[in-house]
Amino acid sequence: MKALRWHGKEDLRYEDVPEPSPRPGEVKVKIHLTGICGSDLHEYQSGPLFITAEPHPVTGKTAPVTLGHEFSGEVVEVGEGVSNFKPGNRVTGDCVWSCGKCFYCMRNRPNLCPQAVYTGFHTDGSMAEYMVVSEVTLYKLPDSISDEIGALVEPLEVGVHAVRRSGLGIGDTVAIVGAGTIGICTFLAAKAAGVSKIFVVEISKARGERALAMGATAVINPKEVDTAKQICELTGGLGADVSFDCVGLPVSGPLAVKLARKGGTVVIVGMSPGPSPDFNFFSIQLSEKTVLGSAAYVRGEAPSVIDLLTSKRIEPSGLITGKVALKDAEGRGFKELINNPEKHLKVLLQP
Amino acid sequence: MKALRWHGKEDLRYEDVPEPSPRPGEVKVKIHLTGICGSDLHEYQSGPLFITAEPHPVTGKTAPVTLGHEFSGEVVEVGEGVSNFKPGNRVTGDCVWSCGKCFYCMRNRPNLCPQAVYTGFHTDGSMAEYMVVSEVTLYKLPDSISDEIGALVEPLEVGVHAVRRSGLGIGDTVAIVGAGTIGICTFLAAKAAGVSKIFVVEISKARGERALAMGATAVINPKEVDTAKQICELTGGLGADVSFDCVGLPVSGPLAVKLARKGGTVVIVGMSPGPSPDFNFFSIQLSEKTVLGSAAYVRGEAPSVIDLLTSKRIEPSGLITGKVALKDAEGRGFKELINNPEKHLKVLLQP
Repeated sequence: MKALRWHGKEDLRYEDVPEPSPRPGEVKVKIHLTGICGSDLHEYQSGPLFITAEPHPVTGKTAPVTLGHEFSGEVVEVGEGVSNFKPGNRVTGDCVWSCGKCFYCMRNRPNLCPQAVYTGFHTDGSMAEYMVVSEVTLYKLPDSISDEIGALVEPLEVGVHAVRRSGLGIGDTVAIVGAGTIGICTFLAAKAAGVSKIFVVEISKARGERALAMGATAVINPKEVDTAKQICELTGGLGADVSFDCVGLPVSGPLAVKLARKGGTVVIVGMSPGPSPDFNFFSIQLSEKTVLGSAAYVRGEAPSVIDLLTSKRIEPSGLITGKVALKDAEGRGFKELINNPEKHLKVLLQP
Repeated sequence: MKALRWHGKEDLRYEDVPEPSPRPGEVKVKIHLTGICGSDLHEYQSGPLFITAEPHPVTGKTAPVTLGHEFSGEVVEVGEGVSNFKPGNRVTGDCVWSCGKCFYCMRNRPNLCPQAVYTGFHTDGSMAEYMVVSEVTLYKLPDSISDEIGALVEPLEVGVHAVRRSGLGIGDTVAIVGAGTIGICTFLAAKAAGVSKIFVVEISKARGERALAMGATAVINPKEVDTAKQICELTGGLGADVSFDCVGLPVSGPLAVKLARKGGTVVIVGMSPGPSPDFNFFSIQLSEKTVLGSAAYVRGEAPSVIDLLTSKRIEPSGLITGKVALKDAEGRGFKELINNPEKHLKVLLQP
């Protein structure tokens, strides 16, 4: 079969690989569509990052690795002992597999499991004709959810998880720093949670306009105005009840802290590549702000996303900005996303 | 009457001032004992800090100010409309008075009220023979609580508030950075909340030994060992469920973050004077740690402290390391605390 494999930094190859077979507990999925994630782009531009240079301690995997962990597809074969799936089931899945036995797994924090395995980095992923994964990472897609929308379940889980972590309540005011894919997924989840006002902080005009079209109360460009002052004024002199950093730069975390009101909550979703040298813990102490991290998602959140999509509480089709054949993935997918970031959110690949 | 007044940095005067009279809603208290707080020391060494250089926007107060906000005493006169107190009642009180009407006051966050007034900084405090305060800041002391212990209610509220903010649960493991007064108050509150293991991180040998004598599981000196590694080993390879920064230095906040396990909670109680340049938001993002500020306390926490003292769930007498006459406060109180910090936690003054 054909697969898109990462051999090294800026070295993706569309090539022939043996078709995989499911072992006990595993399921073989024919991939219909698979998205390019920001983490895939990072791996392409600067890897190995998630991919391990040495054989992965749990899976033994190292380059070459088939990328891909946002997908929709169809079960074609099940391994011994698989009880929840059978050929013909349409499915999507989590990227994270965890040990199921440690302190964190016992508390449904698989994203904190020291043995966690990420599909498409530590095992071969969905940028291929077929993929084999553990049945515990899969979820059935109802007929009402198209393959296109099904491939968005995984990134939407990241947004739903961030909103759940925030403890955000109906009627709250929200500020979201960054209107990339994860920013918009968080935006859609916050909107579905019944917030009263939702401000998007974004430098890119095109991304800002897209957020406005999706229902943002206002879009604020931090290069043009004093963002904290503006959001303070738009919230009756308080600041946002909850803010999200969906960028992950040394400046975006402290900015999100500033946008939250006293006693408010700040959720760090983006991964900062370095320290924030001006950050003073006093800025959260006297104001009793809460700053917390949000990483991926936990089990049980994919079914919530699927229900939110089925009931139209989340309508994410605006996320899809491109659909190309898997064989053209490097040029028309990866490079296109890197060269025209303003134009795109999610590009789907078709094997 | 005699009062100890702050006239400026390193300028405390024990002098005659007019005896105050209660206005409507206010209560006149004869002070039995009053403690020296870390904030009083900061004001003495580096003020004006809490004291405003210009007349305070709510009270109009500026130097000279009678310091003091940790006290026990007896009601001697009540103003018009005071319904909860009468002469003879033994009392202690909160330092914070708030407007009662704003967004934060409506949510019982008086510590976040923009109009908040701090007794002993923005109005004359308890380092005097008599003090006049609003009745809403006072609480009755039962006979079973001595004047000495009664004067500790206010700092103990800070520890109880920090523990409540943390969401700490019975059986949790805890690390406390700093065994000064607020560290020990937090320690006593955490112990009363039923934690399983409680580690104290302290450079001073004398303070460490005092914490051990009070029941610390272990005391760790960060100058001698790798604190995070040690606490990780002592918690089965995890880290503490909850950590507290009760120091407030640029290094202590990030240290408290390191001591918490993945998914754990970090409470910043100390006030850092400057930024923590190496702090990376990534250190809380992927590990899903929660970092939150804790400032003073809210209404309803003093009665909890009084109940905890009455039921002996908190036994704080080890906090008291000195008792001197108010007239000797500067030399035998303030200077003694500054020159011999290892020897002391709380010094009480007797008018």
